[in-house]
Amino acid sequence: MLLEQINQPSDLKQLKVEQLPQLAADIRQFLIEKLSVTGGHLAPNLGVVELTIVMHYLYNSPKDKFIFDVGHQAYVHKILTNRKDRFDTLRKHKGLCGFVKRAESEHDVWEAGHSSTSLSAAAGMAKARDYKNEDNQVLAVIGDGALTGGMAFEALNHIGHEKTKMIVVLNDNEMSIAPNVGAMHQYLGKIRSDRTYAKLKDEVEYLLKKIPAIGGKLAKTAERVKDGLKYLVVSGVLFEELGFTYLGPVDGHDIPKLIELFEQANKIEGPVLVHVITRKGKGYSPAEADSHKWHGITPYKMESGQVVKSAGNPMYTEVFGNALIELAEQDERIVAVTPAMPGGSGLLKFADRFPGRMVDVGIAEQHAATFCAALAMEGMKPVYAVYSTFLQRAYDQVLHDICRQHANVVFAIDRAGFVGPDGETHHGVYDIAYLRHLPNIVLMMPKDENELRNMMKTAVDYNDGPIAIRYPRINVPGVEIDDVMKPIPLGTWETVREGDSAVVLAIGPMIQAAEEAAELLKREGVNLRIINARFIKPMDEEMLLSLAKEQLPMFVMEEGTVRGGFGSAVLEFYAERHIFDQTIVPIGVPDAFIEHGSIQQQREEVGLTGEHLASEVKRLLIARSDNRLTRA
Amino acid sequence: MLLEQINQPSDLKQLKVEQLPQLAADIRQFLIEKLSVTGGHLAPNLGVVELTIVMHYLYNSPKDKFIFDVGHQAYVHKILTNRKDRFDTLRKHKGLCGFVKRAESEHDVWEAGHSSTSLSAAAGMAKARDYKNEDNQVLAVIGDGALTGGMAFEALNHIGHEKTKMIVVLNDNEMSIAPNVGAMHQYLGKIRSDRTYAKLKDEVEYLLKKIPAIGGKLAKTAERVKDGLKYLVVSGVLFEELGFTYLGPVDGHDIPKLIELFEQANKIEGPVLVHVITRKGKGYSPAEADSHKWHGITPYKMESGQVVKSAGNPMYTEVFGNALIELAEQDERIVAVTPAMPGGSGLLKFADRFPGRMVDVGIAEQHAATFCAALAMEGMKPVYAVYSTFLQRAYDQVLHDICRQHANVVFAIDRAGFVGPDGETHHGVYDIAYLRHLPNIVLMMPKDENELRNMMKTAVDYNDGPIAIRYPRINVPGVEIDDVMKPIPLGTWETVREGDSAVVLAIGPMIQAAEEAAELLKREGVNLRIINARFIKPMDEEMLLSLAKEQLPMFVMEEGTVRGGFGSAVLEFYAERHIFDQTIVPIGVPDAFIEHGSIQQQREEVGLTGEHLASEVKRLLIARSDNRLTRA
Repeated sequence: MLLEQINQPSDLKQLKVEQLPQLAADIRQFLIEKLSVTGGHLAPNLGVVELTIVMHYLYNSPKDKFIFDVGHQAYVHKILTNRKDRFDTLRKHKGLCGFVKRAESEHDVWEAGHSSTSLSAAAGMAKARDYKNEDNQVLAVIGDGALTGGMAFEALNHIGHEKTKMIVVLNDNEMSIAPNVGAMHQYLGKIRSDRTYAKLKDEVEYLLKKIPAIGGKLAKTAERVKDGLKYLVVSGVLFEELGFTYLGPVDGHDIPKLIELFEQANKIEGPVLVHVITRKGKGYSPAEADSHKWHGITPYKMESGQVVKSAGNPMYTEVFGNALIELAEQDERIVAVTPAMPGGSGLLKFADRFPGRMVDVGIAEQHAATFCAALAMEGMKPVYAVYSTFLQRAYDQVLHDICRQHANVVFAIDRAGFVGPDGETHHGVYDIAYLRHLPNIVLMMPKDENELRNMMKTAVDYNDGPIAIRYPRINVPGVEIDDVMKPIPLGTWETVREGDSAVVLAIGPMIQAAEEAAELLKREGVNLRIINARFIKPMDEEMLLSLAKEQLPMFVMEEGTVRGGFGSAVLEFYAERHIFDQTIVPIGVPDAFIEHGSIQQQREEVGLTGEHLASEVKRLLIARSDNRLTRA
Repeated sequence: MLLEQINQPSDLKQLKVEQLPQLAADIRQFLIEKLSVTGGHLAPNLGVVELTIVMHYLYNSPKDKFIFDVGHQAYVHKILTNRKDRFDTLRKHKGLCGFVKRAESEHDVWEAGHSSTSLSAAAGMAKARDYKNEDNQVLAVIGDGALTGGMAFEALNHIGHEKTKMIVVLNDNEMSIAPNVGAMHQYLGKIRSDRTYAKLKDEVEYLLKKIPAIGGKLAKTAERVKDGLKYLVVSGVLFEELGFTYLGPVDGHDIPKLIELFEQANKIEGPVLVHVITRKGKGYSPAEADSHKWHGITPYKMESGQVVKSAGNPMYTEVFGNALIELAEQDERIVAVTPAMPGGSGLLKFADRFPGRMVDVGIAEQHAATFCAALAMEGMKPVYAVYSTFLQRAYDQVLHDICRQHANVVFAIDRAGFVGPDGETHHGVYDIAYLRHLPNIVLMMPKDENELRNMMKTAVDYNDGPIAIRYPRINVPGVEIDDVMKPIPLGTWETVREGDSAVVLAIGPMIQAAEEAAELLKREGVNLRIINARFIKPMDEEMLLSLAKEQLPMFVMEEGTVRGGFGSAVLEFYAERHIFDQTIVPIGVPDAFIEHGSIQQQREEVGLTGEHLASEVKRLLIARSDNRLTRA
């Protein structure tokens, strides 16, 4: 294998152009093999093999800056920059990160996990280069899906104005994670379908010659007509209008053509957009056939492409999707809104059942939020299905447009808590802190799938402002389901286990952890009471006041930041009421970024386990003079 | 005056088209007169007089939905919808709101204060209309500046794809609040300069006829050439490419032409963009001459246009701008970045002094943040000058791109706390809650202008990640200034007044309030200690631990939300360390939206005054058995 000789960009540069297709084939083989064991973002990486090879062949990383939008398509880049041998650890605890990671290599100059940041990053790096009078090139590789994110447009607008020298590589695979939507997508489709542009150019020139030479009044008009015809031959008018030189489109799997394109781009002084058409999953037929499924994939059998199924209960995501269909059957007002994540959010079946009531707005979390606000204000019941980490993008719109206007928007916040292998860019551990301080919002988290369903009914029936349900990226516990979904009275908690030694207020999966702690403590004569604090806002004030009278030590456990989290809500509650004699211990995510690994490993790292809770309870009880350990 | 007869849209519809210019003149006179006393957004409203008249003349509000982007250009709309007689109370406590306000009128269907939300709102309302099988029109009026905000592009992309029937009125006054920047601006300029398009159209048609009829292979090409020429005659290619029908540009002060344009727009099924050229400040020469200054104006003398100067110390904004110049003289790495607010952020002098080191990215808070991250990672020292309320837009980028990557970005967060007459859409009372839970960030607030300067030095010298200074929209206290700016040791607080009855941890202007409280309490023998808690994060742990030993009742006072605010940081600190016997009372902004008025009125409304603090201290001391009132 040629790949065996290649460990770093300097090795690659020794090869002849003719050898590069063989290297591409080797890299594909490597990826298909390695990922069959670890899982990972196979299809996007198979799509950029030639592109990444050519970039490292022509440019000098890290002097030239490679910025990968979202960063999950950087596997080939990692292979070519000394990290081949770490692929067995991909996305595992302490292993190779699934995204660009600065700590891994000097060639990783910009990290991301959220989409559409690469153009702003490239603009900043290019501007800094100019300040420092250096001469390196800056290349941002961005997918056509990511291009619909508003901040990408903000960056195009700024770059086109400043005329900053840089190259935007539009990696156009006709889809992001989901089939791409939006006018931009249609626009790119138009360009793509027009592959004959080179031939066309000649024909247009021929036609122009047929226009007789014209003087006088019409001369300027004739000039403009000729000028305007560039729109026909250049394609990419939209980018040209924004100040970019547009080059392409070119087949992203044709190495000589790619080289030619970049060489052309290098000669241009201002910003250039090179339009590269690639195929997701290229070279592995199962992935080519269903590139959505193979966008991010669990381990699979290499020969057949059969995915290794993990047994177990369904995910919360699926329960949400099914329940939403049931609710929508009964309530015509319901509309599901997704920012380009219909599959990830469990809405594919909903879309089949109610195609007209499913709105995919593209990667556009901000627009989605405000669009929902307006739908709600006109009497609809929008359900904004979004990952916790991506809703961060719409913080201002949730505050300014939804909460402030008291709009009846339902938030279905998926992947709340740790997310496992995607790691620190994707954790849903901030939403309690960024939503809890917004007036008018209701925030819930279910302990199991039955409660999720009842919370959805609660949310859909609620007509007094925004209401959110957050649920984790895990399998449901597998409890019995009520025949009919019924609303839960607002702001009510429930005691799920009695106990008189200490109390834990827990939410979501932390209730299962608390149960484990209770079992461990029981053996030592400590009786832990467990409260399902399913309403994070508003809280169960009656229960909080009655707990205050009992004077039991209280633990507040959440898979979210301690800073500004549910624990501090409880602290604030008592402090505002001048109840000062409570013993309250917050247990949550500390003030740090937690790296990739399994969700279980991440919980262990920060102490969000039954074992840790049990030891904390014991430590506190021992420390207190009224040691309840001895009472049993 | 014709205006005297007009109280609501039905009155307006009785007029003949020929009478409308007179009405426009009356409205201008009314605005110039009224605002000379109250102040307000004069220039933007003078620009849209004819446009608003025509909209109400042709359409049926509130059945047809009028959505005003930002909403500060809705004064004419308010005049025409029964609110003329309330203009003496404009932007005052309990008075007429300076923005669209649903509680004021059924004609106010969408509220805003932040820019670029109108297209998403219109998309949602139009979609709801279609779900309900209704037939009303939806009109969004958006300025050319607001069009650069990313969410506006997200909306264009979605609307163009869905082909939703609606009208986007591009109110192009060649500037937003600041001179507009960006490629979009240049693009619109190109269209504007091309006023002869109607004539051009004829000429192009003439030329086309000169191309001989062509059959066979070239027929398709010829067809495309003719097709392509529409780009020359239609203008607005960019919007056309995104799926809109583009109409215009038209003189926004020419009523018959406006009527014609809207009538044309009504005939089109999908989304239409009508491009209207207006002049900010139109009809009042001082405002026409300097429309930036007259964007939002304080009271003025009507005849001369002379602004009534308020005496007093400079604003924090100005101190910031001057200090930044001093720092930039010494430190070449410093670059100032603003999202379209160079004037409001006090950066005009900086821009004069260092034109190359001042980057205005347009209304693009997200891009600005990520652009800063990249500048910082390449060794520059970006200072992101932004209002607290607008930084909300970049919450995700601050978290994902800046804090997570530990980028050395300095945030200069202006208008932290209440903002007065702009009211609930603009308060800077959330930033502590939305920033405090982000790992790696340092967050400071100065007690006076000297401390602001020293904090700026602290921030510029700090090279271990992001660091933010928040300061209020008020005049500085007027203290003496140190000869040389010097950094403040990280995480250190200072005792600004000794006392042994109770302690208040206060930040920013709350220290002045605390001083007032201390004086009031002193008369009653209560000695209030005041601590300037200038580092909100990291806090002064040593001082907090030593305070714990003293067991004094502690008040935490901040002009920010109690939920997730500085007060809860103090509560968390003790709870995490199992220090349970403290008496801590948070005093801050309650969980509600606070309406327009003066900053003082807003503080009084929520109890952020010296008087209220004094009474709270007394109440607590009396309630405690160790009543220190009797000890004196």
